[in-house]
Amino acid sequence: MAVDNRLGTSTLTFSKGPRITSRYTLVGPMEGKGPHALDFHEILSDDSLGQKTAEKTERLMLELAITKTLEQHGTRIKDVQFLIAGDLLNQITTSNLAASTHTAPFIGIYGACSTFAEALGLGAVLLQGGFANQVLIGTASHYQTAERQFRYPIELNVQHLSTNQVTVTGAAAAILSFAERGPRITHATFGSVVDMGLKDPHDMGSAMAPAAFQTIQQHLADTQRTLADYDIVITGDLGKQGSKMLRLLLEREGCSGLERLQDGGSQIFGDWQSVGSGGSGAACIAVMTLGYVLNCLESAKAKRVLVVATGALLSALTVLQGESIPCIAHAIALEQ
Amino acid sequence: MAVDNRLGTSTLTFSKGPRITSRYTLVGPMEGKGPHALDFHEILSDDSLGQKTAEKTERLMLELAITKTLEQHGTRIKDVQFLIAGDLLNQITTSNLAASTHTAPFIGIYGACSTFAEALGLGAVLLQGGFANQVLIGTASHYQTAERQFRYPIELNVQHLSTNQVTVTGAAAAILSFAERGPRITHATFGSVVDMGLKDPHDMGSAMAPAAFQTIQQHLADTQRTLADYDIVITGDLGKQGSKMLRLLLEREGCSGLERLQDGGSQIFGDWQSVGSGGSGAACIAVMTLGYVLNCLESAKAKRVLVVATGALLSALTVLQGESIPCIAHAIALEQ
Repeated sequence: MAVDNRLGTSTLTFSKGPRITSRYTLVGPMEGKGPHALDFHEILSDDSLGQKTAEKTERLMLELAITKTLEQHGTRIKDVQFLIAGDLLNQITTSNLAASTHTAPFIGIYGACSTFAEALGLGAVLLQGGFANQVLIGTASHYQTAERQFRYPIELNVQHLSTNQVTVTGAAAAILSFAERGPRITHATFGSVVDMGLKDPHDMGSAMAPAAFQTIQQHLADTQRTLADYDIVITGDLGKQGSKMLRLLLEREGCSGLERLQDGGSQIFGDWQSVGSGGSGAACIAVMTLGYVLNCLESAKAKRVLVVATGALLSALTVLQGESIPCIAHAIALEQ
Repeated sequence: MAVDNRLGTSTLTFSKGPRITSRYTLVGPMEGKGPHALDFHEILSDDSLGQKTAEKTERLMLELAITKTLEQHGTRIKDVQFLIAGDLLNQITTSNLAASTHTAPFIGIYGACSTFAEALGLGAVLLQGGFANQVLIGTASHYQTAERQFRYPIELNVQHLSTNQVTVTGAAAAILSFAERGPRITHATFGSVVDMGLKDPHDMGSAMAPAAFQTIQQHLADTQRTLADYDIVITGDLGKQGSKMLRLLLEREGCSGLERLQDGGSQIFGDWQSVGSGGSGAACIAVMTLGYVLNCLESAKAKRVLVVATGALLSALTVLQGESIPCIAHAIALEQ
């Protein structure tokens, strides 16, 4: 059987021009005091939304993001062929519960903080392949749910290390379609799992950097591009520590265009905020992409952007059992 | 933009004929004493595989299934474009860790016990859409890991109810490709999340039955088929309780062909085994499909089968927080 030429590479190309045609981002109060406050659609005045538990808040945030992006697109959920969502919680219950309020066929995914790029890539696959003409994607995370699940209940007030990251409180949703406006999704490079043997759950940036490095290398090789072919190459969420590692790895390979590198985790909070190495969480690169990056594309500050979402695929239990941290990165190329 | 006619329905059709061209199933000793023992490729003599923890065993089982299905196909991992896997554990760490031993781009999914059908459907999408020519899928579950994560540590010896199900210890992997042998994947009906308000985690069959009912109805309406157009319609894993509920729901709608209904969860263990309502777990419908169903198709005992994998999308935490149980079912049609 004849095989597509592009199968010699890992990078998928989307010739039919699927686009991000509607988007909504909402963030917590702390993210709303950061340098990208103006890039987000909504800043919550409190991080509970009146809910009794942080998990219920996280779910409500995702539901709000989904509802708002549908509204802005003038699209009813029955005209969406797929809802793709995932989050950090055990059994992705935020997404499952949010999905239960909608009738769209649901594809649940898990990619830790890379979830958003996984959803973008799968959504583009469904559009390009002719399986859908409108796909809804979403993700969410909340500082308090992540702390108590992955680390310690916040009531214990455990001191954070400088390499620790702060989970972003926020949610993001988007509609991918063939409508005429919005940035095109031109390529997706799904990464493989990279495990360099690092075991410190308090330094996930260093663990994830090699995954970002590998996916960027693969993407550039497949597309015969350099970093300089992108106005922005935004990783997320490596944080300051992980970004430093990635830069070292790329420099060692003689990679040019390093000035194009940015990192969602490092940038979402300001230096005046006490956040260790930066932000993280499934919402981090999601709100930074659908907020900041898309604003850059829409205002023509950038014409072509590579989003490289990274995920640390650990659990509290794998850490206790002495496993190292498997990591992944998926890259999505967006064009004005 | 012109839209495919099939978008009027939720059911995807795969005209290019992606097939299940290699498969491997392994199960624990208890499953190996059940009525389908001869359908599985390997029965473990003990359920630890010499590992220190059940989580490490679960991971090793998945790795074994992946390695064996690659070997049987004579395929190297570098010739596989995607690995799609998921499992029941928090943050799908079984799949993440197993994936870290392979170089294929990884798509992590979560669909509880419906994971296998989600993987089959996404794999067929990637093949049909021209994004891949070989996709590897896999899943695993283990009685002990599921018990201690979702219920109680087995050391407590908590008594089970008659509606409780026993998580299947096992793993399954398959290669989907355009090779000339193996059953064709002709349709996929991805289900939406159904939540009827049921809250009892000890009766997940009743919670899941409405999801199976809805997906079956959608599939039959989309394809203009009846249950009788399939030699076997195998749900999984509703268990005996859930199967009874599904049958009642279908009867009430005047649905014919109910004699074609089978259930992976109800059948994997024998009446002589103390398993409450039957088997469950991500491996249950996976080993029953890749073992029993594919044997039926290969030996021409069945020509056309509908696999309806069901999942209860709860977590221990959502139960504690009083949430009801969101459920899902994905249907995959296979033909000889």
